[in-house]
Amino acid sequence: MNYQTIIEEVSKEIKLTKDEGVVASYIDELKKINPEKFGVHLVTTNNAHFFYGDSNEKFSLQSIAKVFSFAYAYRIFGEKIWSRVGVEPSGTSFNSLLQLEHDAGIPRNPFINAGAIVICDILVSHLKDPKNELLDFVKGLSDCKDIDYCDKTALSEKQTGYRNAALINLMKAFGNIENDIELVLDFYFDLCSIKMSCKELSETFLFFANQGKHPRTDAEILTLSQAKRINAIMQTCGFYDEAGEFSYKVGLPGKSGVGGGIVALHPNKYSIAVWSPRLNKKGNSYRGIQFLELFTTKTEMSIF
Amino acid sequence: MNYQTIIEEVSKEIKLTKDEGVVASYIDELKKINPEKFGVHLVTTNNAHFFYGDSNEKFSLQSIAKVFSFAYAYRIFGEKIWSRVGVEPSGTSFNSLLQLEHDAGIPRNPFINAGAIVICDILVSHLKDPKNELLDFVKGLSDCKDIDYCDKTALSEKQTGYRNAALINLMKAFGNIENDIELVLDFYFDLCSIKMSCKELSETFLFFANQGKHPRTDAEILTLSQAKRINAIMQTCGFYDEAGEFSYKVGLPGKSGVGGGIVALHPNKYSIAVWSPRLNKKGNSYRGIQFLELFTTKTEMSIF
Amino acid sequence: MNYQTIIEEVSKEIKLTKDEGVVASYIDELKKINPEKFGVHLVTTNNAHFFYGDSNEKFSLQSIAKVFSFAYAYRIFGEKIWSRVGVEPSGTSFNSLLQLEHDAGIPRNPFINAGAIVICDILVSHLKDPKNELLDFVKGLSDCKDIDYCDKTALSEKQTGYRNAALINLMKAFGNIENDIELVLDFYFDLCSIKMSCKELSETFLFFANQGKHPRTDAEILTLSQAKRINAIMQTCGFYDEAGEFSYKVGLPGKSGVGGGIVALHPNKYSIAVWSPRLNKKGNSYRGIQFLELFTTKTEMSIF
Amino acid sequence: MNYQTIIEEVSKEIKLTKDEGVVASYIDELKKINPEKFGVHLVTTNNAHFFYGDSNEKFSLQSIAKVFSFAYAYRIFGEKIWSRVGVEPSGTSFNSLLQLEHDAGIPRNPFINAGAIVICDILVSHLKDPKNELLDFVKGLSDCKDIDYCDKTALSEKQTGYRNAALINLMKAFGNIENDIELVLDFYFDLCSIKMSCKELSETFLFFANQGKHPRTDAEILTLSQAKRINAIMQTCGFYDEAGEFSYKVGLPGKSGVGGGIVALHPNKYSIAVWSPRLNKKGNSYRGIQFLELFTTKTEMSIF
Repeated sequence: MNYQTIIEEVSKEIKLTKDEGVVASYIDELKKINPEKFGVHLVTTNNAHFFYGDSNEKFSLQSIAKVFSFAYAYRIFGEKIWSRVGVEPSGTSFNSLLQLEHDAGIPRNPFINAGAIVICDILVSHLKDPKNELLDFVKGLSDCKDIDYCDKTALSEKQTGYRNAALINLMKAFGNIENDIELVLDFYFDLCSIKMSCKELSETFLFFANQGKHPRTDAEILTLSQAKRINAIMQTCGFYDEAGEFSYKVGLPGKSGVGGGIVALHPNKYSIAVWSPRLNKKGNSYRGIQFLELFTTKTEMSIF
Repeated sequence: MNYQTIIEEVSKEIKLTKDEGVVASYIDELKKINPEKFGVHLVTTNNAHFFYGDSNEKFSLQSIAKVFSFAYAYRIFGEKIWSRVGVEPSGTSFNSLLQLEHDAGIPRNPFINAGAIVICDILVSHLKDPKNELLDFVKGLSDCKDIDYCDKTALSEKQTGYRNAALINLMKAFGNIENDIELVLDFYFDLCSIKMSCKELSETFLFFANQGKHPRTDAEILTLSQAKRINAIMQTCGFYDEAGEFSYKVGLPGKSGVGGGIVALHPNKYSIAVWSPRLNKKGNSYRGIQFLELFTTKTEMSIF
Repeated sequence: MNYQTIIEEVSKEIKLTKDEGVVASYIDELKKINPEKFGVHLVTTNNAHFFYGDSNEKFSLQSIAKVFSFAYAYRIFGEKIWSRVGVEPSGTSFNSLLQLEHDAGIPRNPFINAGAIVICDILVSHLKDPKNELLDFVKGLSDCKDIDYCDKTALSEKQTGYRNAALINLMKAFGNIENDIELVLDFYFDLCSIKMSCKELSETFLFFANQGKHPRTDAEILTLSQAKRINAIMQTCGFYDEAGEFSYKVGLPGKSGVGGGIVALHPNKYSIAVWSPRLNKKGNSYRGIQFLELFTTKTEMSIF
Repeated sequence: MNYQTIIEEVSKEIKLTKDEGVVASYIDELKKINPEKFGVHLVTTNNAHFFYGDSNEKFSLQSIAKVFSFAYAYRIFGEKIWSRVGVEPSGTSFNSLLQLEHDAGIPRNPFINAGAIVICDILVSHLKDPKNELLDFVKGLSDCKDIDYCDKTALSEKQTGYRNAALINLMKAFGNIENDIELVLDFYFDLCSIKMSCKELSETFLFFANQGKHPRTDAEILTLSQAKRINAIMQTCGFYDEAGEFSYKVGLPGKSGVGGGIVALHPNKYSIAVWSPRLNKKGNSYRGIQFLELFTTKTEMSIF
C-alpha cells in the first residue's frame, strides 16, 4: 500500500476545499494557534513512516490524553475499574448531567470529561506522584522522550473550568470521587495540557495497534485483550456524540481533542495522527475527519 | 482455526453455568418458547459450516430484522436516507422520548425502534408491495428460501405495541412519518416477526462479511463501502444500551433481538448466529453474549 | 368597587398597545378567528354583571374545558382520583414525555394534556354516555343552557392530534389508560371543542368562587373543601409553564386555553372571563394576561 | 376565630398518630436534634399571639431563610431581578440540572437552591457587608433582635455541599454568577444557618401578611404589590416538588426548610410557624404539613 502517495493526494485535495471549522476559543492557548496548520504522520507496526505538512509541530492533546490516563489506570487495576466508570457511548451531550444524575454519579465511559475525571481520581488515590508517573508511562510507550505538560494551558483551563468543576462536585456528592476536588482537577487539567506532534502522537499510540506491545522492544504494555478492549472503547466512545459518524465514515478506532488533533489506528497495521485546529460543531477537527474519511476510502482498508 | 472444536467447548462450558436471563414475556409467542433452547451456526466466506445444538430450529428475529429493512432502504436511497434518521448510539433507553423531542423527531439510529419505524415508513412510501418485496430481498441474500413472516407474532406485537405507537405518533407530530400510522406499524410488526434458524440467519448475514457480495454468486448486494458502513453501525448501535459492552467484550459488529438471537460477523472471515431465549437486563440473550465473548477470546480474533 | 369603570379603562388602555401574540394555527377552526376580537365579562357572587366588547360571542374553550371534566370526575370519585394523576405543576413543557416516563405514566396534574386525557379515561370507564352526561353537568353549573360541543373543531383536532396520541399510547403502555385509545381521544377532543362566550364562561365558573355552590340555587355542586382544592390546582397548574408568572402577576386562580380565553376567579367575590385570540409564546392569550394583570393591580385585590 | 383552641386540638390529635418522617441527617447539626420537638406560634396582624409546645426554642431555618434574602434583593433591585432568575415552579427535582442546562443557567425560581445561590450572588455584588446587612434587614422585619447565624451549621453544610457546588459551577459556566464561587457559597451557607424560634419566625414573616408593612411601626418594607408577589411565589414554589400538594391541602402561601420548620401566612390575617424535625420524602416536615392541613380545615379559612 503506497501510504505516502495517498496521504499527499488526500491532503492536497482537502486543502482545495473550504475549512468550515472554527478554532476552539475558550482558552487563549488554543485560540492563538494558526488555524491553517495541517499535519499528518502514519507509522506502521513495521516502523515505516509516512508524513505530510506540520507533522513535527507540537499541539495540545486535550481529550486525546484521556486514552493515556485510562490505559495506565486499566493496566494497574484491570477489570475492577468498571465499578467506577461505564463503557457505553454517551448519547448527546445536552443531557450529560441528567445522565450522571440517573446513573448515580457513574460516568458513561472513561473518555467523556466526567469519566476521565474519575480516572484521574483513581490515579491520584494510588500513585505517589501522579503527574510524573503518568508522564513516565506515556514516554515509555514509544521512543519519544521529549514529551511534557504545558503549564500555561493547564492554568488557563483551570481558570475557566466551571463545567468540569460542576461535574466533579456532582460526582463527589454521589460518592464517586475519593480525593480533594482541587487535587483531582489539577491533575486532570495537567493531563489535557500534554503537547505532542503528529509524529509523537502516532508513535505513542502504535502499541494499541501492536497487540499491546511496545513497537520497538515488544515489551508488553497491556495484554492483547486489554489493548483490543481499549480499541473497542475508542471505536464506540472516542468522538463525543460524533462517535457513530466517525465509525461510519472512517471505520477505525480513534480519539480526538479540541486542540484539533485526531489519532486513529488499524490493528496490526498502523497508527495515524492528523492535526488541523479548526473544529466542526461536535468539537472534532473538521479537516482531520475529512482527511481520515478520504484516506480510508482510498486505501479501502478499515476494520469493517 | 478449528471453529468446530471451539464452538463445542464454549457451548459445553456455558451450559455448566447458571443462565441468569429471563425469557421475554410481553407477548405469548415469545413467552412460550422453551428457555433451554441453545443453537449456534458459523459459516465462513469460504462456505465452511460449523454448528451446535438447536441450530436448525427457527426463532423470532425481532430487532435483528431491522438490519434487513435498513440494508434494503440504504441500497435504494443511499446517503439521502440520513435526512430521516441518525447514525449515533442512543445512550440509555430511559430518555428515548426526550431524545426524539430534542432532535425534533429524528431517531438516533436505524436500529432503535423509532429508527426502524422511520425506515419502514420510507419503504412503505417507495415500494408497491413492501411486505413481499422485503421478503424477496431477504431471500435473495443467501440460498435460504424457506423464510417467512409469522402472522401470530406480528398480531400479538400489534396488540401490545403501545410504546411503539407512542414513538410513531410523536415522530408524525414532528413531520418525520409520511404514511398512515397503522400501515407503517403493520409493516414494522411484520418485519420483526420474521423467523429463521441460526443456520439461515448466519447465511443471510454472510454478505456483510463478504464485502457486500452474495456469498455464492458474488453478485453485489451492497457496495463495499455500504457493507462496511452497515457493519460500523451494527458495531456502535447493535445492542441497545449494551452496545459499548458488546463491542468491548466481543469485538465484532452484530445485532441482537428479544427472541434470544444474536448474529455477529468478522469481516472477510465469517458470520455467526447464536440463539438462547433468556435475556439479560438490557434485553440481549444472556448466554448468547456469554458465548460470543468466550468464542472471540478463544479464537483470539476480533476486529480490534 | 367600580368594576365596570376599571374594566373599560383597562380594555381601552390595552387596545392602545401592540398585541404581540399570534393566533393558534394548528387547526383551521382556530386559525380563521378574527384576531382582533376582545371580550370581558365579570359576574359577582351577588349576581352583578360587568362586561365589555365581544363578551357575548362564543369561542373554543380548549384547555379551559379540562376544569369541567376534572370537577366532574372529582365530584364522582373524590380523593381516590389521585392514584391516576398528580397535583404538582409540570415544569417546562420540553420534558413532558420524560416526566411521564419518570413517573411511570402518571401525569403531573389534571390540567396538562396527559392529565386531562386520564380524566377522560376515568369518565369513559364510569359513565354510560360520557359526552352527554358531561355536557349536562356543565349546563347545570349555571343558568346557561345553550352550550354545546363543536364537531368541526373536534374533528380537526383529531386529525392533527399526533402528540396527544403519543401521550395516550405511552400512558397505555404504563397501564394508566383503561379504555380503547380511540374512544378516549374522541371524548377528549370533544371536551376541548366546547364553545362558550365570556358571559357563559364566567357564569359557569362562578360556583368555584361561591364555595362550590350553584350561584343562583345554592345547591352544592362540590363541597367547600373540593372547590377550594380545585382553585388551588388552578393556581399552581392553570397556565402550562407560565403558571408561576400568572400567579405572580395576577394573583388569582384561573385557567387558559389556546382558543384565547382565560377565566379567573376571586373566591367569595367574582369570576371573570377574558377573550383575545392572539397567544404569547407560552400559549396563553397575550392580551388576556395583560388585561388581568392591570385589572388586579387597579382593583388592588388578589388572593395574596 | 378561637385560634388557641384549634391549635391545641390539632396538636394533640397529631401527637396521637405516628410520625412517619425522618430527621435530616446529612449534617451533624441537624441530625442531633430531638425528633420529638414540636412547636407552633401564630401571630395575627392585630398582634394577638397563640402558641403551643416548643414554640420558643430556636431551630435552623435552612431553606426558609431564602425568602429573606430574596425579599431583600427584590426590595433593592425590583423587577430587574428577573433577568437572573425565573418565577416558575421547578417540576420534579430529578431533573434540576437538566433544567439549568436547558435554561442556560437561569434557575426556575428564587426558592430552589440554584435560585437562592443566584440571589446571594446578587447581594454579594451590591452590598459592602452582605452577612451583616442581611441580618440587619431580618432583624428589622419585627421586634425580634436576638437572631443570628449558626457558624457550626454553616461549616457543616459547606463541608458536604458538593451538590450546591455543582449547581453554582454550572451557573458560573453559563455566566450567571458574577462573584468568586467560594464567597457566594459561604454567604449562602451562612444564610441557611440562621436560627429562629417559631415565635420569631412567625413574627418576622408577619409583614408579608400585612401588605408589606412592619406589623408594629407600619413602615413600608416592601410595596403592597411586592409583598403580594412574594406571597404568590411562596404559593407556587415554596415546597420543592410538593408545592402543588401543599397548596392543595393547606391553601396558604408558605415556605419550608429541612430543619423541620414551616411558615405560612394568611394575607391580612395572620402568620403561623410550625416546627417538627422529621421530614417526609419530599423534604418537608411531616407533622408540620399534617398540622397545617388540619388547621386550615378546622378554621375553614384559606386563600381559596
